[in-house]
Amino acid sequence: MTDKEKAIAAKVDAILPALREKASEADIKGEFPLSHVQLLSEAGLLGLMVPKAYGGLGGGLRDLSGATFAMGTACPSTALAFFFHCSAASRGTLQLKALDAGLFEGEEAATVKAFAEKVLYAMGRDAKWLANFASESNKKASAMLAIATTASKVDGGWKINGVKSFGCAVGVADEYLVTAKLEGYDTAEGLATFFVKRDAKGVSPRVKWDAIGMRACANDGLVLDDVFVADDDALGVPGAFVKSMQMSRGTFVGNQPAGTCCYLGATQGLYDYAIRHLTEKTFSDTGRPVGEGPMQQELIGRMTVELETAYSWMRRQIDLESSEIEIRPKATVERQWHLAKGTISEACFAVGTNALKACGTANTMNTSPIARGIRDLTMGLVQAFPAETGRLYAAKDIISKQSETLFST
Amino acid sequence: MTDKEKAIAAKVDAILPALREKASEADIKGEFPLSHVQLLSEAGLLGLMVPKAYGGLGGGLRDLSGATFAMGTACPSTALAFFFHCSAASRGTLQLKALDAGLFEGEEAATVKAFAEKVLYAMGRDAKWLANFASESNKKASAMLAIATTASKVDGGWKINGVKSFGCAVGVADEYLVTAKLEGYDTAEGLATFFVKRDAKGVSPRVKWDAIGMRACANDGLVLDDVFVADDDALGVPGAFVKSMQMSRGTFVGNQPAGTCCYLGATQGLYDYAIRHLTEKTFSDTGRPVGEGPMQQELIGRMTVELETAYSWMRRQIDLESSEIEIRPKATVERQWHLAKGTISEACFAVGTNALKACGTANTMNTSPIARGIRDLTMGLVQAFPAETGRLYAAKDIISKQSETLFST
Amino acid sequence: MTDKEKAIAAKVDAILPALREKASEADIKGEFPLSHVQLLSEAGLLGLMVPKAYGGLGGGLRDLSGATFAMGTACPSTALAFFFHCSAASRGTLQLKALDAGLFEGEEAATVKAFAEKVLYAMGRDAKWLANFASESNKKASAMLAIATTASKVDGGWKINGVKSFGCAVGVADEYLVTAKLEGYDTAEGLATFFVKRDAKGVSPRVKWDAIGMRACANDGLVLDDVFVADDDALGVPGAFVKSMQMSRGTFVGNQPAGTCCYLGATQGLYDYAIRHLTEKTFSDTGRPVGEGPMQQELIGRMTVELETAYSWMRRQIDLESSEIEIRPKATVERQWHLAKGTISEACFAVGTNALKACGTANTMNTSPIARGIRDLTMGLVQAFPAETGRLYAAKDIISKQSETLFST
Amino acid sequence: MTDKEKAIAAKVDAILPALREKASEADIKGEFPLSHVQLLSEAGLLGLMVPKAYGGLGGGLRDLSGATFAMGTACPSTALAFFFHCSAASRGTLQLKALDAGLFEGEEAATVKAFAEKVLYAMGRDAKWLANFASESNKKASAMLAIATTASKVDGGWKINGVKSFGCAVGVADEYLVTAKLEGYDTAEGLATFFVKRDAKGVSPRVKWDAIGMRACANDGLVLDDVFVADDDALGVPGAFVKSMQMSRGTFVGNQPAGTCCYLGATQGLYDYAIRHLTEKTFSDTGRPVGEGPMQQELIGRMTVELETAYSWMRRQIDLESSEIEIRPKATVERQWHLAKGTISEACFAVGTNALKACGTANTMNTSPIARGIRDLTMGLVQAFPAETGRLYAAKDIISKQSETLFST
Repeated sequence: MTDKEKAIAAKVDAILPALREKASEADIKGEFPLSHVQLLSEAGLLGLMVPKAYGGLGGGLRDLSGATFAMGTACPSTALAFFFHCSAASRGTLQLKALDAGLFEGEEAATVKAFAEKVLYAMGRDAKWLANFASESNKKASAMLAIATTASKVDGGWKINGVKSFGCAVGVADEYLVTAKLEGYDTAEGLATFFVKRDAKGVSPRVKWDAIGMRACANDGLVLDDVFVADDDALGVPGAFVKSMQMSRGTFVGNQPAGTCCYLGATQGLYDYAIRHLTEKTFSDTGRPVGEGPMQQELIGRMTVELETAYSWMRRQIDLESSEIEIRPKATVERQWHLAKGTISEACFAVGTNALKACGTANTMNTSPIARGIRDLTMGLVQAFPAETGRLYAAKDIISKQSETLFST
Repeated sequence: MTDKEKAIAAKVDAILPALREKASEADIKGEFPLSHVQLLSEAGLLGLMVPKAYGGLGGGLRDLSGATFAMGTACPSTALAFFFHCSAASRGTLQLKALDAGLFEGEEAATVKAFAEKVLYAMGRDAKWLANFASESNKKASAMLAIATTASKVDGGWKINGVKSFGCAVGVADEYLVTAKLEGYDTAEGLATFFVKRDAKGVSPRVKWDAIGMRACANDGLVLDDVFVADDDALGVPGAFVKSMQMSRGTFVGNQPAGTCCYLGATQGLYDYAIRHLTEKTFSDTGRPVGEGPMQQELIGRMTVELETAYSWMRRQIDLESSEIEIRPKATVERQWHLAKGTISEACFAVGTNALKACGTANTMNTSPIARGIRDLTMGLVQAFPAETGRLYAAKDIISKQSETLFST
Repeated sequence: MTDKEKAIAAKVDAILPALREKASEADIKGEFPLSHVQLLSEAGLLGLMVPKAYGGLGGGLRDLSGATFAMGTACPSTALAFFFHCSAASRGTLQLKALDAGLFEGEEAATVKAFAEKVLYAMGRDAKWLANFASESNKKASAMLAIATTASKVDGGWKINGVKSFGCAVGVADEYLVTAKLEGYDTAEGLATFFVKRDAKGVSPRVKWDAIGMRACANDGLVLDDVFVADDDALGVPGAFVKSMQMSRGTFVGNQPAGTCCYLGATQGLYDYAIRHLTEKTFSDTGRPVGEGPMQQELIGRMTVELETAYSWMRRQIDLESSEIEIRPKATVERQWHLAKGTISEACFAVGTNALKACGTANTMNTSPIARGIRDLTMGLVQAFPAETGRLYAAKDIISKQSETLFST
Repeated sequence: MTDKEKAIAAKVDAILPALREKASEADIKGEFPLSHVQLLSEAGLLGLMVPKAYGGLGGGLRDLSGATFAMGTACPSTALAFFFHCSAASRGTLQLKALDAGLFEGEEAATVKAFAEKVLYAMGRDAKWLANFASESNKKASAMLAIATTASKVDGGWKINGVKSFGCAVGVADEYLVTAKLEGYDTAEGLATFFVKRDAKGVSPRVKWDAIGMRACANDGLVLDDVFVADDDALGVPGAFVKSMQMSRGTFVGNQPAGTCCYLGATQGLYDYAIRHLTEKTFSDTGRPVGEGPMQQELIGRMTVELETAYSWMRRQIDLESSEIEIRPKATVERQWHLAKGTISEACFAVGTNALKACGTANTMNTSPIARGIRDLTMGLVQAFPAETGRLYAAKDIISKQSETLFST
């Protein structure tokens, strides 16, 4: 780790005890601890991915992955909400890269720059929490993501209508960044980004987030009913979204591995607990650790392999997406991510179920770190896409040299 | 099915709607719906495993398995609590068989008979709910079950001290049947059985049952602190317990497969929901069922194989344990159960996780039949023993011709 | 088993030592032991599936499955070749059923009857070995089996041209039964069946069968180059083939499980050898069986589960396809087979690889029953269709209520 | 790669076509192509792991792994035999390190130095092929490796008696290096190393190597019957063997991952063939690649994940064992290897079986790159130790902080 990386990691480490302290109660209640907003804001972490020029820490994928991993060992829900916040920075940084690459001209360039800076100053200098809403529950046979939320031009701004399903920090974030398609477009060209105030008229939660796991990430989703967004809060330039996506070195907006690091951190936490439990609990007749039982030994070996498999894939993916010299072309990096995401998630989940079997019924209590861990890791199996989907994407790419269509509108 | 089997099955079917109606709320609250006691009592089902001569339905393993399976499709927690209740009947029927086999003489025979009939009349004629407590959380390197709870002889009865960990229906059952070892014994010879009143002095719950799954089975466990049991309520004849266990045709007290049928029923319920969901939900662009997507097809195939694997093993096990002509010797039937229990539980759990992946994030809500199902099925992975333990038992038996020691004291 | 079943089983048992004796050498050379033809012919087994009226044993699916299983424990290649021979009987029996069902009239009926009886007398009364050629290596995206071999009408008979890929007993069988499509047809309606003499002009082997496993089944395939077949040796009635297929109770021509029983038998043979090896070989320091080592125990448990999984599925499938009362409708029986075939094959293969790991490098010698077994079982993974294909067929059927198209021409 | 690494890799690449050309025939015959000795000798590769000062290339683990991987894509048997040859260099280099570390004094130091240099000059300057024999088929419950071969002091040298089971290049190598225990010792302290001439009196092959895979590596093993070794050809200093082993950075003599790279190379070769086959073979009705079929897509995704899993673990292990700064302590590196070896081998094997299923029966011919690959990869499942053993070693280490005893005598 470089000195800069160490400094960021130290900031993250400093807040872990506070996260850990509230994790269990937050899980029970299914509520994001509101005090975490101030905690992370004051720690300067909300600007983790924002360039220093805009008041941020200037972190990159390695920093973000380290942060979400570490937070995941303490409170996976917070880690996940934080990840979605940080992904909002890409709405600024990738646009700046697109500008540098000369993809915009004249007035468009000015609009794009203003919007990008607005995003970055909000997260960096002003240490605000932004929630980032792209996904919708709508499914298409022909695309990974289907955006049906629509922005219609009105006097002085836009009217937004639609339903967003994944994003975290609903009712918690200072503001929301919402992806919608411009009325009249039906390709990704029409995708655009909007600031939506948390308490704006027409904004309401889609559901009360009450999930099997990651219960404290406030992932209620949004219903947007004729929500007005002023021109200054919108990036309605057609094509701007797609152009910015081309700027990312890796997958999607270039930070997907960090999202999965939340689950890897949760897994490491669960694993450590299980090993401690199996070492400290003893057989009443022999006094030896329960973990020395033959069933437990079999499962410990398996858990450890699964954990290391997750690490091996993650390490490789982060290398591919963050190394200074390009190791593989972008298409290959994306294909690798399609395989990695599911492989890591399944391996993490397998650590959980094997730990439960090794540790036994005492750890089926809902508040046990193992039961809670399994519940959290269940979310990892489906978030974004399951392992099977990723493998089919990769196979299509390999035989038909055809990448998946990310967005369709 | 014979006419008698059909009649019992009809009684079970009649109460399923009532179970189904309360299942979700019972899961949320983690509370056994008290009205179910009366429901099952009035339906005559509490005497399912009690011979007709004692006011029961005279059912056998096939009936019990069918009942817990069917209840499992509606409310797995109730099915499980009902299973533990029914297992109490073996405390009567196996003793009667041991008497028939001439294993007891004189006064001992009279004592055994009186106790056995007391158990059977309570469950049959009087339609009472008995909870059955054998397991403890204490672990020994040398035995499957370690009983540390102790009964000391006192004037007119016994004093019981110890902690029981699994049994269900705590605070719900009319009375508890508790296995303890007689003071001064340290082998299975000393195991004895006692009626304990629900509200007896010195009885308290071990924990508030708040588990990841099977949340409504009231499995709080018992703390027994100098609990007095009168001689009439005790079967303190040394060796009686062990003798009765030898009478069972199959595994343990001869009904283990029915316990696992609770999970199989839960799995069938979850599977049906998932297939319906995948058939009815359609892609927004093509209008075709989401279940026709290639990822979903892969997972549906896999789910179906896992479900059928569970059925194939269960069908075989019930045949082995219930057929009129002995298909395999008892030792082989036990070995097969050691393999079957884990294989079925893992297959059921795999149906759950594959269904979740096929159905997607919408079904991660805690009250979704899929999320709830996964949580319930998690319990199946560890209840009694995990698959790895069962396989190791079988391997030992195969190579060393040595069966596992069930009880050690 | 009924007395009739026992009598057939005894005939099979009687020849096992002879099969076992030549199995290893036949594997090494990759040659079908020619003496087996006479052996099975004299034992009366070539008429196993032929009604008694035609000189056969009148066996059914249960008998055939028992026979191929038993032969599989001794020489899997012979079992497989025998299976393909026996499947030829369906070309007679199913046509007789179709006649009984009134599916043919007038002259067609007479032609069909004559051909059916010719097949059955050859196999039964005359105890001849028939090889049965349906499959081709040609693949279509739209069908399971694609038949490109063509029969063109010529004076007094037919000219057959094409290449057949699977069928066994090439150069060994007394005669071949070949499926081809009638010129001018491009649906299954045009499928027809022809007797082809082993030494007919224009007949040559497609390859020298030199496979990884099942090396002694003489599965060279056929090249048919303008092969003349006289009218008396042909069933060229359009639609006759398809009509006969509808008559089978179960999958395909109603005997598929027996084909897979060859592999199950091979697996049982391999398993028995491994357990004996692990029991008899001892650690040099402790003198205890190597099979008591913790790694070996883990693998023995796993092998045993896989073996029992194969049995459980097979038992169920044979029940579904042979029980006197219909347990499930034909479509469901076929779906179950699509799942069963792969599940059993994979389970058998897993027994092989786990046995190898438990028994160690000493059993990697090509002639070791374990190495040979693994090679034979490899063929089971791909024969007919792999597990993945079967699961996808089932999934399609479940969601789209659409069965796979078996034949396309 | 550094320039030095590139230069070594170029030497390896240059001989690949020659290896590839003979691979299939060598597999069929089960014979090591004798011309390969001269080929590798002239290419300078026999001194790959020998310091430049002794006439070698001065390569390290990364070079050796790259070489065996590349050779594995062309002829896995040659790669494996070459690996065992290269491992002999450690008998020189680790002793030199032990000398540098001051572990020997006086006359012992001189003896050790002379022996070490003899080994290194033979392999480097003289470009001779040495086969390295450590393993025996004897199994102990208490140790990973049990050496029963004994060296008894006689006038002017030693008499060696015993049987060695694994080592490759029997009858091919110029000389053999044999590990035996000194008479009178029963701990690893007594292990010693001896040069044995290929044609020495009393040396004969243990078996004719005729295995399921890696058939051309001449792994016949040795029977040593009163074989005389002169003092100059022996390193009979008690403790010298153990001291040298402590010098290795990584596992065993510090090159284990390179042995497994033979299998990884074989897997990459098989994978490439399969993808080419699935891309080039087309459906006869649609003209599209067979690899686009849904079953094939599922399997291609799975194969690719397994291949990448193997790479991820291998990359990590080589990093751990070769990085200039110590990433993890030696005990952790060994534990990781215990997990890695099996995980990689199983993943490679899974690529093979999935490729076969995707490519179908046409590739079951024994000479097909897929069938041959599967046979070769089968050896990887058991060589050294199976995955289950490695996991149990790791589990013991994790809970009991107890490493496996490598040698016992």
